[in-house]
Amino acid sequence: MAVVKRALITGGAGFIGSNLADRLVADGVEVVLYDNLSRGRLEFVQELRADRGAEFVRGDVLDEELLRHSLKGCDTVFHFAANADVRHGLEHPRQDLEQNTVATSVVLEAMRAAGVTRVAFASTGSIYGEPEIFPTPETCPFPVQTSLYGASKLAGEGMIQAYCHGYGFTGIIFRFVSILGERYSHGHVFDFFRSLREDPSRLQVLGDGRQEKSYLYVGDCVAAMLIAMGQPHEPGDVHIYNLGTEETIVVDESIATIVGHLGVAPEVEYTGGIRGWPGDSPFILLDTRRIRALGWQPTVSIGDAIARTLDWLEEHPFVLEERAVA
Amino acid sequence: MAVVKRALITGGAGFIGSNLADRLVADGVEVVLYDNLSRGRLEFVQELRADRGAEFVRGDVLDEELLRHSLKGCDTVFHFAANADVRHGLEHPRQDLEQNTVATSVVLEAMRAAGVTRVAFASTGSIYGEPEIFPTPETCPFPVQTSLYGASKLAGEGMIQAYCHGYGFTGIIFRFVSILGERYSHGHVFDFFRSLREDPSRLQVLGDGRQEKSYLYVGDCVAAMLIAMGQPHEPGDVHIYNLGTEETIVVDESIATIVGHLGVAPEVEYTGGIRGWPGDSPFILLDTRRIRALGWQPTVSIGDAIARTLDWLEEHPFVLEERAVA
Repeated sequence: MAVVKRALITGGAGFIGSNLADRLVADGVEVVLYDNLSRGRLEFVQELRADRGAEFVRGDVLDEELLRHSLKGCDTVFHFAANADVRHGLEHPRQDLEQNTVATSVVLEAMRAAGVTRVAFASTGSIYGEPEIFPTPETCPFPVQTSLYGASKLAGEGMIQAYCHGYGFTGIIFRFVSILGERYSHGHVFDFFRSLREDPSRLQVLGDGRQEKSYLYVGDCVAAMLIAMGQPHEPGDVHIYNLGTEETIVVDESIATIVGHLGVAPEVEYTGGIRGWPGDSPFILLDTRRIRALGWQPTVSIGDAIARTLDWLEEHPFVLEERAVA
Repeated sequence: MAVVKRALITGGAGFIGSNLADRLVADGVEVVLYDNLSRGRLEFVQELRADRGAEFVRGDVLDEELLRHSLKGCDTVFHFAANADVRHGLEHPRQDLEQNTVATSVVLEAMRAAGVTRVAFASTGSIYGEPEIFPTPETCPFPVQTSLYGASKLAGEGMIQAYCHGYGFTGIIFRFVSILGERYSHGHVFDFFRSLREDPSRLQVLGDGRQEKSYLYVGDCVAAMLIAMGQPHEPGDVHIYNLGTEETIVVDESIATIVGHLGVAPEVEYTGGIRGWPGDSPFILLDTRRIRALGWQPTVSIGDAIARTLDWLEEHPFVLEERAVA
């Protein structure tokens, strides 16, 4: 990680961003946490700010001037701020466009103005839509998008790639499966946990309970990213990595794990259909040979990742409270 | 073409849009030509408006209210308005974002509000970046973008696909090679023609003259689109077609054709490099088996398409004049 001396993390107070920040600071990297706190939490970065010298800027990724100013002295941007609400994308189709696509353009322009040319990007396995090849490799056949979220991340990837080719940027793109672990604050484990706390007698499940997906523990995710960042990179390079486990879990198994962990016995109701919602992918399993070839492998199983997530949620009930979102 | 009764064409006064409009009107389709005239030309649609009942709306694709209003009674949108200036993308990186990506979102939202759910989209072979497979099929390995133009069209495709999956839209996406023919008003034949008119003694060529590309005559392009539109389509369907010839031409051959046609003998200077500009693809040849399987084939060779383009430019010198672009 010698190559990263000072990094700005958009979404630095978010789930993955703050976990990444912990590791970067531990490795001696100067970190600027840039977050508008719409989904990020000051609690996640309190210690980093108070005791470990991380700088916090409350700012929006659409604010190019503030971004440019905040980028002074940085050599790398981890662009992790996003609207990650895949499920409700169809209710507000402009959110993905603005907060993901346009925001990525603003970040890239701020970088160009500030002379910062290395960008790591939190993309998603959702950009594979509903692929025909499993596990799905980075070079799978040109996919068709099935969600606005996936489309917006695809747009972000495309712009980053064009900035690499055209302006000599270096792009490191991570296509994640769903991530679990400490500070996890949205997704199906979160929804099930909250629902069962409110009413342990019943649980509504979107879809038929048969969706099968890979998940990754946040600590393993951060470790993979640091290994990828430590590779040699040239201006113009685009490096794309799937990040996930070789395991999958079916929603019903996931429910059994959660129910067992919480010691409850709800009646489970299914809304039906092979997808939890339009744009939900019935099967997600990414080919991770590319990142594994660099020596990485996950250390936490999906079952253990769910358990750690539940333990953390129990210890941090404040994340269960609804907040007004900007 | 029974399925299309009334269509709105964004970019309807542009090169491809106005040629498409001619054919649609001839086939009895009611046509609304929607164009802000930044690149389109009233001259291209004068006859359509005056004698053949086409409606013209001077409007911008970012004006959702006007678009929505103009969509009344339409069953199909041909979204052809775009910033098609691939070469200068790096000089103004926000243009592709605004005029292609954001504009496509505005068009889709206007359609959703107006209850119009069939969209044909002018995409581009540029979204294949620098592929490794030639001819390049629609299902080639997930490409890496090399131009902001390609990235912006990729973003447009992705949103259309997500609207198909999420809102039951039908999307017909055309990935064009460069198009030649009547009303052609930008691109290398245009640039060479204008330059040789001004000074027949010399010609500056971007790159090494060895770039090899497929081109398609606009009449063949329009014919292919009408065949594709006439296929059975269900809500939610996404149909993607490469449009091009099986021929290619090398820039130097293209110059020889132009020089021969004009009867001039310039000294040719090369700027050098395998690409004409950053983001230019050294080799473009698309696999068109998918559209050919519907019974289409091109009728005009690249050489003849260049000749027709030159003839048309000679007869319509007004397109050579520089205009202030909005």
